[in-house]
Amino acid sequence: MTLPLADQPLLDGVTGADTARRRRAVAKTITLLESTRADHRARADALLNALLPFSGQAHPERSLRLGISGVPGVGKSTFIEALGLFLIERGHRVAVLAVDPSSSVSGGSILGDKTRMERLSMDERAYIRPSPSGGTLGGVAEKTREAMLVCEAAGHDVVIVETVGVGQSETAVAGMTDMFCLLQLPNAGDDLQAIKKGVMELADLVVINKADIDAAAATRARAQITSSLRLIASMGVHGHPDHGHQPVATWQPLVIQLSALKGSGLDEFWAAVTQFRTVQTANGRLAARRQAQDQAWMWERIDAGLKRQFKDHPAVQQALPALSDEVRQGRVAASVAARRLLDLFH
Amino acid sequence: MTLPLADQPLLDGVTGADTARRRRAVAKTITLLESTRADHRARADALLNALLPFSGQAHPERSLRLGISGVPGVGKSTFIEALGLFLIERGHRVAVLAVDPSSSVSGGSILGDKTRMERLSMDERAYIRPSPSGGTLGGVAEKTREAMLVCEAAGHDVVIVETVGVGQSETAVAGMTDMFCLLQLPNAGDDLQAIKKGVMELADLVVINKADIDAAAATRARAQITSSLRLIASMGVHGHPDHGHQPVATWQPLVIQLSALKGSGLDEFWAAVTQFRTVQTANGRLAARRQAQDQAWMWERIDAGLKRQFKDHPAVQQALPALSDEVRQGRVAASVAARRLLDLFH
Repeated sequence: MTLPLADQPLLDGVTGADTARRRRAVAKTITLLESTRADHRARADALLNALLPFSGQAHPERSLRLGISGVPGVGKSTFIEALGLFLIERGHRVAVLAVDPSSSVSGGSILGDKTRMERLSMDERAYIRPSPSGGTLGGVAEKTREAMLVCEAAGHDVVIVETVGVGQSETAVAGMTDMFCLLQLPNAGDDLQAIKKGVMELADLVVINKADIDAAAATRARAQITSSLRLIASMGVHGHPDHGHQPVATWQPLVIQLSALKGSGLDEFWAAVTQFRTVQTANGRLAARRQAQDQAWMWERIDAGLKRQFKDHPAVQQALPALSDEVRQGRVAASVAARRLLDLFH
Repeated sequence: MTLPLADQPLLDGVTGADTARRRRAVAKTITLLESTRADHRARADALLNALLPFSGQAHPERSLRLGISGVPGVGKSTFIEALGLFLIERGHRVAVLAVDPSSSVSGGSILGDKTRMERLSMDERAYIRPSPSGGTLGGVAEKTREAMLVCEAAGHDVVIVETVGVGQSETAVAGMTDMFCLLQLPNAGDDLQAIKKGVMELADLVVINKADIDAAAATRARAQITSSLRLIASMGVHGHPDHGHQPVATWQPLVIQLSALKGSGLDEFWAAVTQFRTVQTANGRLAARRQAQDQAWMWERIDAGLKRQFKDHPAVQQALPALSDEVRQGRVAASVAARRLLDLFH
């Protein structure tokens, strides 16, 4: 797949040195990637492959991918804006992306309103992009993954992927980032919900936000979540055993407190992130996680594509309604119906 | 699909009145269903469709499908044997099936050793079948679903499907039964694990077994699990809202205590099951659940079949290793690789 000549300036723009031009090129490239037109898709694929050598996929050390989740009201926007400004002051270039499958329903989107992060969005060392809208969670996640590669190629060394705490979007975001951070309120019970939803076990770092409002509650929450994380670890779900003979340092999920509104605790947060990166780079898990994510992503997309091909197949389309009906009425076993449809497709 | 003449005696045997002959016919039919040979599969599909009109699929009122889960050591075998004998004495005919995907690894199987339920297995009003072995959880679950239909056609009005408490097998069993029962020990902490694994929210009934050993602990566990179930219900995950104007009675998950070893509490257990059935039949959910399970089962089998067709496709087989490798090395984006492979398949 070679790059059409018309797209070469786009590639040059993304990877170039001119800051203002780069921002425009990144935005235009992501818009192309998000297009559903078939001819756009072919161009987008060629562009994506041309960008890949500059991305964190080819050079894991060039970027850190940070997932941020938490229920509405936990203060995600305030936290991300504070963190973004904190990082920019320290020489980082930050990109903020979002995964919000509900944006296809509401027409709106988290991050859709850039005024939510007014100061950060005005800084040209940052790039903020709202969630792609439309389609399934898998489709939304794919666009965000691709946008992440474009941002990395444009030199953003910290890519933050935000998600609202609904449905399976946390799993999708944890599946595309190096480190998954869960924001919690200093409010017991919140953690039980996260455990129940399976989100707690995804967390590499739990951040208790708004800790300044009730210090005693925050301390209780910290103790409780820490013990929950230990319990989860003892169940053998989080983390993978090392099979080498030498013990290898592995990351143990941490709980920290901060106040995004006051900007306090960001240094502790960033120290934890840096330590995570050091530990996981040394033991090889950062690279292994990206590779595993990529393989899983490829298969997830194949599954979705197969199902689409199946549903679009004329013979299947013709037979499906009647067969579904016969299954419903107990005249054909479901597994037999599946085999018949698969035969038609084959 | 018509039934080959050679299989007609098998069908007659399953649906016939001769008890001893019926047991043999059920066993032979399930063995045929479990075969992986293509010619066996065609015969099995024909037989399955011929059996369907006699099964609980066509007549939901003829059978109750009961899922039983719990971690090893909770006393599942003792409970199922005690329950089976209890039901047989009351005129029911019981079938016990199992889903244990690990049996393909170990070569063994839960229920593989019928001496575990010696008295029940010797009674000809009961039929006990170990878990099918080999293949994925989806494959094992499919065989068990089909075996369930055979047992129903043979007149077993209570079909118990047992699963070990590992991996996703609970979800599979909850997805093929009318009522899902979770066995727990009188041991706080156990319930947190069940919540975390998402098993608690599947439960229609939680049974605290071995309650006689420590009555105080059992009472505490009952209170704790009851409050956990309420919490889960309040999170809006369990149960579905009714949209009618008249309030409809819906089943609220219960917690009961018993001692399977002493045989005490079985009457309370069966009263709860009977009440569940009455409530869920009246509000239409028993039938709706079976229909939804069937549709989900059909699509699960289609997904698995599509993936197999894809992996068996010559062009895909040829291109996959190199493309996977290029993805691994960061030379091709995962989504681009997926699209290329889908094009080859298409």
